[in-house]
Amino acid sequence: MATDRSEAITDRASVARARAWLAAQLNVLGSEEIAIPQVAGRILAAEVRSNLDLPPFDRAAVDGIAVRADETIGASTYNPSVFRWASACADLPVGAAMRISAGEPLPSGADAIVRSEHVGLDERAAGTVTEPVMTGSGAERKGSQSRQDGTLLTAGRRLRPSDIGVLASAGLTSVSVIRKPRVRCLVAEGTIEAGRPLPAGKVYDANQPLLCALSERDGAIVVEQRMIARDRASICQALLVPGGDIILMAGGTGTGANDHAAAALAEAGELVIRGIALRHAETTAVGIAAGVPVLLLPGTPVGCLLAYECLAGPVIRRLGGGDPTFPFPPRRMTAARKFVSELSMTELRPVRCLGEDLVEPIAAVAEAGLKTMSQADGFVLIPEESEGYPQGASVTVYLYDGHERAQS
Amino acid sequence: MATDRSEAITDRASVARARAWLAAQLNVLGSEEIAIPQVAGRILAAEVRSNLDLPPFDRAAVDGIAVRADETIGASTYNPSVFRWASACADLPVGAAMRISAGEPLPSGADAIVRSEHVGLDERAAGTVTEPVMTGSGAERKGSQSRQDGTLLTAGRRLRPSDIGVLASAGLTSVSVIRKPRVRCLVAEGTIEAGRPLPAGKVYDANQPLLCALSERDGAIVVEQRMIARDRASICQALLVPGGDIILMAGGTGTGANDHAAAALAEAGELVIRGIALRHAETTAVGIAAGVPVLLLPGTPVGCLLAYECLAGPVIRRLGGGDPTFPFPPRRMTAARKFVSELSMTELRPVRCLGEDLVEPIAAVAEAGLKTMSQADGFVLIPEESEGYPQGASVTVYLYDGHERAQS
Repeated sequence: MATDRSEAITDRASVARARAWLAAQLNVLGSEEIAIPQVAGRILAAEVRSNLDLPPFDRAAVDGIAVRADETIGASTYNPSVFRWASACADLPVGAAMRISAGEPLPSGADAIVRSEHVGLDERAAGTVTEPVMTGSGAERKGSQSRQDGTLLTAGRRLRPSDIGVLASAGLTSVSVIRKPRVRCLVAEGTIEAGRPLPAGKVYDANQPLLCALSERDGAIVVEQRMIARDRASICQALLVPGGDIILMAGGTGTGANDHAAAALAEAGELVIRGIALRHAETTAVGIAAGVPVLLLPGTPVGCLLAYECLAGPVIRRLGGGDPTFPFPPRRMTAARKFVSELSMTELRPVRCLGEDLVEPIAAVAEAGLKTMSQADGFVLIPEESEGYPQGASVTVYLYDGHERAQS
Repeated sequence: MATDRSEAITDRASVARARAWLAAQLNVLGSEEIAIPQVAGRILAAEVRSNLDLPPFDRAAVDGIAVRADETIGASTYNPSVFRWASACADLPVGAAMRISAGEPLPSGADAIVRSEHVGLDERAAGTVTEPVMTGSGAERKGSQSRQDGTLLTAGRRLRPSDIGVLASAGLTSVSVIRKPRVRCLVAEGTIEAGRPLPAGKVYDANQPLLCALSERDGAIVVEQRMIARDRASICQALLVPGGDIILMAGGTGTGANDHAAAALAEAGELVIRGIALRHAETTAVGIAAGVPVLLLPGTPVGCLLAYECLAGPVIRRLGGGDPTFPFPPRRMTAARKFVSELSMTELRPVRCLGEDLVEPIAAVAEAGLKTMSQADGFVLIPEESEGYPQGASVTVYLYDGHERAQS
């Protein structure tokens, strides 16, 4: 009879070791050409250069009158500069001003725009200016945003809406961005898919929708989601199907009679790490099959979520050219209660905020289930070398408050 | 001859007044039923109740052995509690322990799970436990996440990946979420669409792609994007086309001979505010046409972006049931240089971060064009009652650093 002791996975790798091994396997994916309006949130694969001077000519940046700045020197309320009106022209006559709208080309000779609301009229309805303007004021110079063939945006940049505007200003219709990681999302059979009747003693599957939502949040495309029979041969066969950049498989990671995911990975490719010192996700395993990284995640939804956030998420974001760090804004807050954590275990402890600055740990995460994670305001990462934090300590909280970083 | 003074819009409404008027026009949109895997980031339209106890039975939360907790009272290294092995059963015999995997139903009688790594074996290979466990430890109780017909998630919640998992656990296949706002995005003719040859004196349009990217960031669907001839009749006709929840129109807002957007809005519906005290976006106008709010935004890309962030974005997020505040995480930082702003003008001043805590304003925004906005690290909002902030002041910076709040 096998001993229970031998059935527990006690020789666990650190989270840092698992992360380092995964990072060493990865290259940022290749690129694809995407039309400008659809590239917001994507990562530029290469520097973008401008085909033209941007703007292509000197133009008015504001609505007002085009003048020669040196003709306003010394202007004051008591001694206004007076301009006669010039009609729309290519060359501004000396002593004249021309009405101009933002975006219109500057007539030659003009080098500043006085905003409409700062223009007065004298008794003959000639334009008056009562403050000197500086050369260039209110004017946007040819090539000031970018010179022809100059850098518009650098490689590796995550494109914001304002970048989309800049790319369009340069007349570009598409750019090269890192392609989205393709995730194969497998779940070991045993749970029931939502929408079907629930037999006694069974539960509905949470892991497949959970892993899909997490992967998509991190900029991936889920190319396959499937339940796999729990036997070793079926899992092995599923791991060897090509078409993904990473495989996530939930369930079958334990040491019970019905747990064959690790053995199947060893058979399909390489089982590099079995057992990770991550609280509530200790049975997580890592390896490689069909040439791509494989993460075997615990079947409990809480463990599956924690292993995703700590190990799979960084891999997916890195593959997609993004930042592997947590996609939540960190904030320094004060521990309202003691955070206790086991030494040599990394813990991602869900927390509740008690106002602007105070935060408390949520206890009994495994026993409380996934809803606790969904009700948390964020989490604190307690590294393996720490036993936690005393009450009153300053802790870094990653907040779920809706500011998740968009990956695409 | 018309005076220049009369051509300037000098009677500007405050940003607060424009926002209040817009907010008063709006109702959160109706709902639509969406399949679970696609609802991440959407806002729940109604409370979701559970059809079943969640979990539906008492189950193991961890891998280990199921025991009666009171049989471990007094257990220690010198006096371990010893259990004989029971095979898989519905009732746990007194004095026995049963191996169990996370997720499996608890046999009746058992009320705690001892984790595998804390289980020892004595010389007869019987199970030993050397520390007392508490009732409920390692076990997830029937109904502890939610009772049948109990609240699973509350209305108005933006759904996170973990919520998707909770909804799936309850066997749900779809939920009712607020539908996405439909934005009609119009641009006054005069610029050239990217991909076409650029005539002398013309520039490419940045506003259409910019407004689309911004609207989609805020959870909207752009149902129409179109260039409109600049004359009053064409704009009026375009404003009256039904099918949107909000109309954004860029360009033609000034007081030049070629600017007819405000007059067209007055003719099509109601021009409520013309001229807003928002720096670089002073010609913005607000009204109603075809029963929906209309925002007329300046044609300069910088002004268009600022007016969007300050006025249109909050409207779109509110329509979609979301939070109207800026979708960027605020951070308190220290002003490395003086921020100067005109009294009675709201200013959204782009900034550059100089390390973790220091921030400096970017000058000459209008003159520097859209690329400056794209290169900024974030912005500081300077309200109209402020003339700015001295060097060393603590300012609230809204950071673009990739933590934009996802709206869908």
